[in-house]
Amino acid sequence: MMKNIIEGFLKFKTDVFPERAEMFKSLATSQHPRTLFISCSDSRLVPELVTQHEPGGLFVIRNAGNIVPSYGPEPGGVSASVEYAVTALQVTDVVICGHSDCGAMTAIATCKCMDHMPAVGSWLRYADSARIVNEARQHTSERARIEAMVRENVIAQLDNIRTHPSVRLALGEGRLALHGWVYDIESGSIDALDYHTNTFVSLADYPDVRATHTQLKVAV
Amino acid sequence: MMKNIIEGFLKFKTDVFPERAEMFKSLATSQHPRTLFISCSDSRLVPELVTQHEPGGLFVIRNAGNIVPSYGPEPGGVSASVEYAVTALQVTDVVICGHSDCGAMTAIATCKCMDHMPAVGSWLRYADSARIVNEARQHTSERARIEAMVRENVIAQLDNIRTHPSVRLALGEGRLALHGWVYDIESGSIDALDYHTNTFVSLADYPDVRATHTQLKVAV
Amino acid sequence: MMKNIIEGFLKFKTDVFPERAEMFKSLATSQHPRTLFISCSDSRLVPELVTQHEPGGLFVIRNAGNIVPSYGPEPGGVSASVEYAVTALQVTDVVICGHSDCGAMTAIATCKCMDHMPAVGSWLRYADSARIVNEARQHTSERARIEAMVRENVIAQLDNIRTHPSVRLALGEGRLALHGWVYDIESGSIDALDYHTNTFVSLADYPDVRATHTQLKVAV
Amino acid sequence: MMKNIIEGFLKFKTDVFPERAEMFKSLATSQHPRTLFISCSDSRLVPELVTQHEPGGLFVIRNAGNIVPSYGPEPGGVSASVEYAVTALQVTDVVICGHSDCGAMTAIATCKCMDHMPAVGSWLRYADSARIVNEARQHTSERARIEAMVRENVIAQLDNIRTHPSVRLALGEGRLALHGWVYDIESGSIDALDYHTNTFVSLADYPDVRATHTQLKVAV
Repeated sequence: MMKNIIEGFLKFKTDVFPERAEMFKSLATSQHPRTLFISCSDSRLVPELVTQHEPGGLFVIRNAGNIVPSYGPEPGGVSASVEYAVTALQVTDVVICGHSDCGAMTAIATCKCMDHMPAVGSWLRYADSARIVNEARQHTSERARIEAMVRENVIAQLDNIRTHPSVRLALGEGRLALHGWVYDIESGSIDALDYHTNTFVSLADYPDVRATHTQLKVAV
Repeated sequence: MMKNIIEGFLKFKTDVFPERAEMFKSLATSQHPRTLFISCSDSRLVPELVTQHEPGGLFVIRNAGNIVPSYGPEPGGVSASVEYAVTALQVTDVVICGHSDCGAMTAIATCKCMDHMPAVGSWLRYADSARIVNEARQHTSERARIEAMVRENVIAQLDNIRTHPSVRLALGEGRLALHGWVYDIESGSIDALDYHTNTFVSLADYPDVRATHTQLKVAV
Repeated sequence: MMKNIIEGFLKFKTDVFPERAEMFKSLATSQHPRTLFISCSDSRLVPELVTQHEPGGLFVIRNAGNIVPSYGPEPGGVSASVEYAVTALQVTDVVICGHSDCGAMTAIATCKCMDHMPAVGSWLRYADSARIVNEARQHTSERARIEAMVRENVIAQLDNIRTHPSVRLALGEGRLALHGWVYDIESGSIDALDYHTNTFVSLADYPDVRATHTQLKVAV
Repeated sequence: MMKNIIEGFLKFKTDVFPERAEMFKSLATSQHPRTLFISCSDSRLVPELVTQHEPGGLFVIRNAGNIVPSYGPEPGGVSASVEYAVTALQVTDVVICGHSDCGAMTAIATCKCMDHMPAVGSWLRYADSARIVNEARQHTSERARIEAMVRENVIAQLDNIRTHPSVRLALGEGRLALHGWVYDIESGSIDALDYHTNTFVSLADYPDVRATHTQLKVAV
């Protein structure tokens, strides 16, 4: 309801803003976020809440399915936002964060017909490489298949973002690291991709999970 | 710094999550946000903070410049996310929210060369109609020109979102309203577009600002 | 048959041109049309005949389905021609004119498979918002569904043309008006969109039909 | 002036339509044009007048510069309209018709700055191969350079249309011929491309000008 939105803003203006007025003043004419956080449009995953970051901390891209299209001759909004974050803002880290019960990944994993939502159907093709990998596997249940799809999608989008010129340059210069996360809504947990073992591990148990700071290289 | 991000998450898990565990449990398998909130990737504007909304409240699209491409045969991530919000989630309101000191709008209003960021340059062409209108006007200062650009961009993106099939259908059926906002980082204020007068008014002074609930018609 | 085309030209050269030689001479080095007329490629709707205009009177765009793509970073021929008409020629009126028995609209309204004509299928997606609105309605017959599709398409293309920078600027400066027409081949009638009532009315009965001269505003 | 347009229609309805009512009735539910006529949006060249054809005779595409984009993965309106004409209507002839004093070709030949009309600038790149050829030549005057540009553009667009799948198929099956024309506004003359000599000849003097009925072949 729009009423709640406007009331929420009035509460912010009266109760929340005054105590942070100094901080907002210091942010008025510049931003220096160190992290680009890419997550789903889903209402249940709030990046700033989950990372306990104040305004000014995260440069955020959000879309259905936390998808990063591979780079091509017709770059769109995600490509532009990644480029701006990496080239103009010089962020040092990129987090791609999927989440449990994702409507987009569930639609893919359960082969839902997308005829009534053609734009969604088209957009999810950027997760095709995850879908194909996931379909080739055995899963013990539908739920397991969906959960695996969410993880595979994060990996596929990490592959996709490597095709972006600005990312490739920053990785080559050693000034950027890539992180893959999956957030679980019910438990508030995060599993993170460990690049050495290529598995997802609990971030709470394993906060020094190894990200990638390097360009892809072919093993000799 | 990634260290801060991970520490932030550990703080969330230990201090913040437990007291909201019940809420997160109830959200584990479904979301019912009523509002699609489209804003910039800028780190300084946190939609959930500004509207004082908990997880589950806002379906959020964020990209550089809070842009909504006009609809076409090659829909991208914004189009897909809009379609999902309006068709699958049946949101009742869409807020397109620009903000002060926007890097993207400043780049446009000051004719910044975009050669080193071609994806950004291409993406910002979806704000061309705002740019052309703004360039045709007199401005008392560069700052005024930038502020006017931010407002014109919100109006142009409201024009763009009307070309989306799902939005057109929902407007025609009277189940969707469109809102245009501009957030000021320093003062924490929001100006909202009043569709009757076609001007921006302070939301705090004028919380009953009139949105549009109808399909395109032109006032006399 | 090409023979007819060439014979037609020879007839034009011998019989028609001489009596208008003076007019053609005056047009040799400049054109000053006041109206941009956008209609279908269909052979049965000749804009200059239907409006009884001589050469020099109408700047004409014709394509399958009288479609005006919404504006974007990769503008094509329609966008270029609209821009030329509004910016360089400073036309004062734009007419978007659909027509009865339109092959393109019939294909959409009857869900014709477009696999053998992929370029047509892609192009007609610019009429998606009209299609979605039309599909959500009850129609008394297939013919009624097609006729409604033709009208909805004209409205959708009027939405699309508003996203063009040159059009937005000209509307804001009060030097352009937009008109939506549907021509009936069998009866020679035209129905025009009245912007106040959002309905189509007979142009013969109601020649003072109200167009829009203003930027986007929403009627209460 | 819109007043003239509407008065023109009323005159058509009262004076012109009745005497052709029978013809229009016979056209109400189908069209069978044999020729696809592609010409400029310019107000001074009316295809049906110049070829003395009644409604039903010509399927017409008109855009700034009578341009036919080469075929690619993102086909637009011209490609769709060509495909519809050749595949669905099975036209037997395509005429690409340029004209004297063309604003688009003059802009190219005189290197006019297009910064204020970016969509036009982008669109005219489909005439780049004509521009490059024309720039490499000596011309006796600016007027001669512009006239040569108009002719070269017709040739380049004939090359472009050959890249369309539907055209290639129809040429291979011997059921389509391609024609290149240039119309002179002042004299009412047409010069046509003779494919045997690769020169333009007066259509009045040489009505049996040789078109191409065949696919491009490489000479042995």
